[in-house]
Amino acid sequence: MSKDALHEVRDSLRRFAEERDWGQFHTPKNLAMALAGEAGEVIEHFQWLSAEQSAALDDRTREEVALELADVMLYLVRLADVLEVDLADAARRKLAINAERYPADKARGRSDKYHRL
Amino acid sequence: MSKDALHEVRDSLRRFAEERDWGQFHTPKNLAMALAGEAGEVIEHFQWLSAEQSAALDDRTREEVALELADVMLYLVRLADVLEVDLADAARRKLAINAERYPADKARGRSDKYHRL
Amino acid sequence: MSKDALHEVRDSLRRFAEERDWGQFHTPKNLAMALAGEAGEVIEHFQWLSAEQSAALDDRTREEVALELADVMLYLVRLADVLEVDLADAARRKLAINAERYPADKARGRSDKYHRL
Amino acid sequence: MSKDALHEVRDSLRRFAEERDWGQFHTPKNLAMALAGEAGEVIEHFQWLSAEQSAALDDRTREEVALELADVMLYLVRLADVLEVDLADAARRKLAINAERYPADKARGRSDKYHRL
Repeated sequence: MSKDALHEVRDSLRRFAEERDWGQFHTPKNLAMALAGEAGEVIEHFQWLSAEQSAALDDRTREEVALELADVMLYLVRLADVLEVDLADAARRKLAINAERYPADKARGRSDKYHRL
Repeated sequence: MSKDALHEVRDSLRRFAEERDWGQFHTPKNLAMALAGEAGEVIEHFQWLSAEQSAALDDRTREEVALELADVMLYLVRLADVLEVDLADAARRKLAINAERYPADKARGRSDKYHRL
Repeated sequence: MSKDALHEVRDSLRRFAEERDWGQFHTPKNLAMALAGEAGEVIEHFQWLSAEQSAALDDRTREEVALELADVMLYLVRLADVLEVDLADAARRKLAINAERYPADKARGRSDKYHRL
Repeated sequence: MSKDALHEVRDSLRRFAEERDWGQFHTPKNLAMALAGEAGEVIEHFQWLSAEQSAALDDRTREEVALELADVMLYLVRLADVLEVDLADAARRKLAINAERYPADKARGRSDKYHRL
């Protein structure tokens, strides 16, 4: 692949917004709302499922969820773009922060380490 | 770059979870919740800002938001991975669906096209 | 009790906003964001818990969650107020809609009735 | 009114869940997800609106939003009930905390007081 997928999606979204004159609606505030709205739709697919059921979706539901995840990604990439945030770089930096915050030997098998450290 | 950023992050998260034995917590249900929780944190940065203020963040806030966007991305990539969803492929497919749903000539400058068509 | 709790909270919030000149920030758009942000905080308390653990919170966590639920309620009541929506009336009407949508005999023990009917 | 609206809704929801044998799905974890999902639906109504537009909804949209707020309230009341949290009491306690945290004279007209104090 010649182009990174994140960059490809970012460029597609730029064109998409330009062709529709939607830049005026794509303020960070509005895009943050759209991102949260789509995350809410992801959650609705899982809310009545047990942990086990959530890991064994039927094909139809799995495809619906895939497109909801795509929606989250589209707004995430677009929001990062209008904020001039390099998403891949931010993700790498956050991974490094998390690695320091949750040392493997101390965090092993403990989910409370996520939010109580 | 030799490796796509999404794949790189996915692989880092796999290693991260493995080293901490966190796979047991990473059910799709739990990860969907974490994704929504992080989207909620993004929103909290913007809730009292005007549209204009949201587009002119000071450096400190912009960096905080960048790391929140990174959190959303990390959970999004991880959730897609445990569901065996190809995120880049899903995003491309959703872009194609949106292009058909919102034809440029009809959707121009109309935000209602997003949710009322 | 001489006054309905919802009305009491609504009136307290009106006074609170007035005394701080916060009416200018309390647009429906901003309050909807605040509501979603607080719902995100509720979720963060439960994301790594099993169903069983979520039903057996220790006292400290339960009190933290109680105050998060309070935050959701405060923004919900305030948002309804600025929209001039009667929350108790809307809840009663929605309950009646749900009763018709999910007849007890057909919906018994089926969670899919929630979103697939 | 002889009965507080919050108690009335709580009791209706108890009956509703009992008649449908839905108690098994109403774990705090699941209800927290449903609450966040509904808050996401509220947000979707406002995401492309300006602050001004959000304060001047047409009748159709306002009624749609009223029923979304009702959904948030139903899950909020139900979640509080299964956690044995007194919602009205928690709201009052949170209001008292906020009054101390944001003294009227210092917080006047400053939205940053919400999250930066």
